Amino acid sequence: MTTTDEHPLQDPEQAALGLCRVIHEFHAEGWCWGTGGNFSVTLSRNPLRLLITQSGRDKRRLTTDDFVLVGRDGAPVTAGAGRPSAETLVHSSIVSATGAGATLHTHSVAATLLSEHFCSEAGFTLTGYEMLKGLEGITTHRAEVFVPVLPNAQDMSAFSHRVDALLAERPGLHGFLMAGHGLYTWGVNLEQAQRHVEIFEFLLECQARKTGFKSIA
Amino acid sequence: MTTTDEHPLQDPEQAALGLCRVIHEFHAEGWCWGTGGNFSVTLSRNPLRLLITQSGRDKRRLTTDDFVLVGRDGAPVTAGAGRPSAETLVHSSIVSATGAGATLHTHSVAATLLSEHFCSEAGFTLTGYEMLKGLEGITTHRAEVFVPVLPNAQDMSAFSHRVDALLAERPGLHGFLMAGHGLYTWGVNLEQAQRHVEIFEFLLECQARKTGFKSIA
Amino acid sequence: MTTTDEHPLQDPEQAALGLCRVIHEFHAEGWCWGTGGNFSVTLSRNPLRLLITQSGRDKRRLTTDDFVLVGRDGAPVTAGAGRPSAETLVHSSIVSATGAGATLHTHSVAATLLSEHFCSEAGFTLTGYEMLKGLEGITTHRAEVFVPVLPNAQDMSAFSHRVDALLAERPGLHGFLMAGHGLYTWGVNLEQAQRHVEIFEFLLECQARKTGFKSIA
Amino acid sequence: MTTTDEHPLQDPEQAALGLCRVIHEFHAEGWCWGTGGNFSVTLSRNPLRLLITQSGRDKRRLTTDDFVLVGRDGAPVTAGAGRPSAETLVHSSIVSATGAGATLHTHSVAATLLSEHFCSEAGFTLTGYEMLKGLEGITTHRAEVFVPVLPNAQDMSAFSHRVDALLAERPGLHGFLMAGHGLYTWGVNLEQAQRHVEIFEFLLECQARKTGFKSIA
Repeated sequence: MTTTDEHPLQDPEQAALGLCRVIHEFHAEGWCWGTGGNFSVTLSRNPLRLLITQSGRDKRRLTTDDFVLVGRDGAPVTAGAGRPSAETLVHSSIVSATGAGATLHTHSVAATLLSEHFCSEAGFTLTGYEMLKGLEGITTHRAEVFVPVLPNAQDMSAFSHRVDALLAERPGLHGFLMAGHGLYTWGVNLEQAQRHVEIFEFLLECQARKTGFKSIA
Repeated sequence: MTTTDEHPLQDPEQAALGLCRVIHEFHAEGWCWGTGGNFSVTLSRNPLRLLITQSGRDKRRLTTDDFVLVGRDGAPVTAGAGRPSAETLVHSSIVSATGAGATLHTHSVAATLLSEHFCSEAGFTLTGYEMLKGLEGITTHRAEVFVPVLPNAQDMSAFSHRVDALLAERPGLHGFLMAGHGLYTWGVNLEQAQRHVEIFEFLLECQARKTGFKSIA
Repeated sequence: MTTTDEHPLQDPEQAALGLCRVIHEFHAEGWCWGTGGNFSVTLSRNPLRLLITQSGRDKRRLTTDDFVLVGRDGAPVTAGAGRPSAETLVHSSIVSATGAGATLHTHSVAATLLSEHFCSEAGFTLTGYEMLKGLEGITTHRAEVFVPVLPNAQDMSAFSHRVDALLAERPGLHGFLMAGHGLYTWGVNLEQAQRHVEIFEFLLECQARKTGFKSIA
Repeated sequence: MTTTDEHPLQDPEQAALGLCRVIHEFHAEGWCWGTGGNFSVTLSRNPLRLLITQSGRDKRRLTTDDFVLVGRDGAPVTAGAGRPSAETLVHSSIVSATGAGATLHTHSVAATLLSEHFCSEAGFTLTGYEMLKGLEGITTHRAEVFVPVLPNAQDMSAFSHRVDALLAERPGLHGFLMAGHGLYTWGVNLEQAQRHVEIFEFLLECQARKTGFKSIA
């Protein structure tokens, strides 16, 4: 995935406005209740600059003041800025490996339950769904899309190295689950990334209804 | 079903506006997330002209620029127009066989799961529901409405011939499922077609909750 | 239940506006998709005059033009008016027996499934829920609220006699289900009737999740 | 939890406006249908003054006129004011024990079912969910958050003493369920309390889907 002239990077103000709109739409679907989820847009690549949600902000009331500009190491670029999301390193790993223009991490009930259920199997496969073709580059419902599940961790630096390894191993990946957490997906720009969230959340809800969870209660 | 003076065909601009409204209402219900679904209005019959959603357009952000005018063969009528949905031939088959003024294809979770579950049995029967009377011409809840499920296909030309055969065999049909996909339904005009979507989606959700899907996980 | 000065009857225009608002709110909850449901306000008692939804109107697009004024026998009071809902006689039976100022009939998935599941047992009992206290006159969650289920019928005149008998037998009843249909409830005015719908739909969803329906698929 | 300059107490008018907004947002999620739920903001501590929803008010139509100012004993401070919620004493117990700036009691389907299911075990434990970190002071998904379930009661004075005992026994508690009722949670201010509702309702829905309820039908 490369960013071309067709997908120009946005200025910070536009990026913050766009992220606010998308986050409010996700909140309305129940995909980032409370402080759940974190979201970024890539503003530049050399050097790497991400505009990302500040840590612990309530997504229902999010405004354009609730973002912070960070570099590759996840630290704020300007002094006195707010504290970035604890998972900023996951975002920069994804952007470095995939060239993503936007990286979105949602917390739906279906994603949370599936991530817990399939963690011991390291993931699960989606196939046969026409909706798979909503993932960029997938051209047939017969595609087998493996959704990796990574165990949750408190050490985000160590976790981001697992993400580096996963993305190196699976170059065409569209998204993965973090156990107990939810979905990470991305796209060349915010619009495509949001589409990937909708596609995945649809497929995860299908998978959740097929799985049943009573046994893990 | 015939189009009469009571159901005049709309002009292209009105048709696009009407479709946008309906598609946004479907999106809000979760019936066409991401690029899911395709939708058309019949603008004329001799020659056949359909205004249909362009391929791969994000339904959440759809505007009146996201449609294309096609003929019976599914190809755009004007050069340089966008690429029509891959399933355009299914729409023209339905319009040719039923005289539909609008053809709507939604992707709900319930429809997707049922289409997968009942594909080997080629469909399932809905009966006893008062809501069946919302399908044009059904006058009693005792009606047995068979919902055919057609296997999905990559070759849409071949698939549209299966649709031709299905509609020839079952002249009073109100809709069918495409496995792994969702629902196709139609009506003499957009309003009736949207009503048929709501009625079917209600009945499919009832059927889905009665079916359970754990066994196919 | 009697209508007092605290609950004055509305004029037809206000009644139609109020019903439209309530019906659109119900539609947004998925309780009257398509043509599902019918709804009335009592305009006078001597003689009995109900403003009721016309038959077969799409609830999503309902306007104040989609109502008709009927008498005790369910027939329109003015010549040339639209055709009243087929279930008008059920409304007039309820109003005659209970003095209801508004009668509301919704079609939710939960109500439909429960009405089918418990039809052979003629109903089911709700108890232990604090929400029961939202039904007028219920003062403790320990109340046992029986929800009768009447078999569906095509002959609405015969069906309305069953409703007469039910209401004579159970004077304090707040609502009942019609098999394959959904919920009938009412109140001294539209506001109370809407509250009863919300309370019942909440309790029916609780009951539905406890019941499970796989066995009746 | 203490109220500091960062969390100033609001004036009554602002408190009523804030509560109305939050309650309408909860209603839209289906968490306080009909007359379900009661909600307060702490206006002062010495003496204790709560602005709380009046008893039996319809949450869908709630306005700033539907609140009443009460003291520690749950009685209205001004003569002629409306009747406070029957559960006012629960609110004042919570505020006295925790210093809460806002106390919110929602009635969701998931909370109701879980409160019934786990009442005999006096509660259940949530762990492994990243969303737990949305509860103030929780810093790891490995935290074990016990959700107590108290049996419902008609005598709210006796019930509030059980709440006093529970809060004395578990000083860091973020919320509890009342059997057949729903969730009580709170926060230093209304914003934090609303966040706690969203976090709990998300986790309760996860737990509900894992539990299954067919056995208690």
